[in-house]
Amino acid sequence: MKKSLGAKTILYPTPVLVVGSYDVEGRANVMVAAWGGIACSKPPCVSVSLRSATSSHSNIMARKAFTISLPDEAHAAQADYFGIVSGRDQDKFKVSGLTAARSDVVDAPYVSEFPFVIECSIVAVHELGLHTQFVGEIKDVKVDDALLGDDGRVDLGRLRPILYVPDQQAYYGIGAFVGKAFSMGKGLAGRS
Amino acid sequence: MKKSLGAKTILYPTPVLVVGSYDVEGRANVMVAAWGGIACSKPPCVSVSLRSATSSHSNIMARKAFTISLPDEAHAAQADYFGIVSGRDQDKFKVSGLTAARSDVVDAPYVSEFPFVIECSIVAVHELGLHTQFVGEIKDVKVDDALLGDDGRVDLGRLRPILYVPDQQAYYGIGAFVGKAFSMGKGLAGRS
Repeated sequence: MKKSLGAKTILYPTPVLVVGSYDVEGRANVMVAAWGGIACSKPPCVSVSLRSATSSHSNIMARKAFTISLPDEAHAAQADYFGIVSGRDQDKFKVSGLTAARSDVVDAPYVSEFPFVIECSIVAVHELGLHTQFVGEIKDVKVDDALLGDDGRVDLGRLRPILYVPDQQAYYGIGAFVGKAFSMGKGLAGRS
Repeated sequence: MKKSLGAKTILYPTPVLVVGSYDVEGRANVMVAAWGGIACSKPPCVSVSLRSATSSHSNIMARKAFTISLPDEAHAAQADYFGIVSGRDQDKFKVSGLTAARSDVVDAPYVSEFPFVIECSIVAVHELGLHTQFVGEIKDVKVDDALLGDDGRVDLGRLRPILYVPDQQAYYGIGAFVGKAFSMGKGLAGRS
């Protein structure tokens, strides 16, 4: 039997998106968002939703660019800190001891110590209610080269990304391999 | 050192969204999508991006509603199958042996055997390129009652949801607890 939980924002999993932007005076800021995901393959786009009350919101509106830095497990506390305080009250890079690196492709900073970065320029802004959804075209993806496997792809066991579970307000790691996509369902596809 | 991977649609993690819809004749269809996520808190919204070539795309355009059923690890092969074939060629419910349950709140079916369901009515449609992004207002969330813990919340260890890793084209489970959100970063927030 299924039980109704009501109209809640619960999904498993959601990502931990550390959104980087510059303010009008060029100061780097970061915040953390779990409301977002890949939105289009061609052009490659990612969307992230922010409340208009955040300083990142006004930064992105003005600069038309943002980055997403993905924290690994070792940087979960710093990512969480980015979501606790406002960039209006604290210089989050200074307090966390992390480094703002200027993107070479968009007008936004990323977190140098975080292992995986997506750099975006704004292609659409959607007012959905409490949150504004920013759709960014992905201009480049960067990863720490020590995390690449022999096949030139990201080694997930070395990257150790984290995810967010909304109703628990908790971070988790990525677990065990379950199966190959476009493969484990092939047996079913054959028996029509 | 960071290495550029180019403008690719890579994010860790992305969800495994099994999207349910009815066609004009009332036949239930499902497909699987990894491009989406929660998009707004008030009203509660989720977005999912589909190619216009899919039958689900035309179904949702006509019916203005969809569901998202989340597969657990035990149903990963069925979810994968939903992404391999087109609803134009196969009755995916019949072939998979799964049951289409009619939502009691929106005009769309969900997968009865999957443990977690989000029911949505369309509030916005955004043409982004190859993909159309459907924004659905969440009207209800339903979960198998056997998966609820004593606190009335979903027990993640019983739910066993899966996630998708784009560049590997692979499904993984959810891993170990890393920390509490809005909590593990508090130590940093105090030392400004």
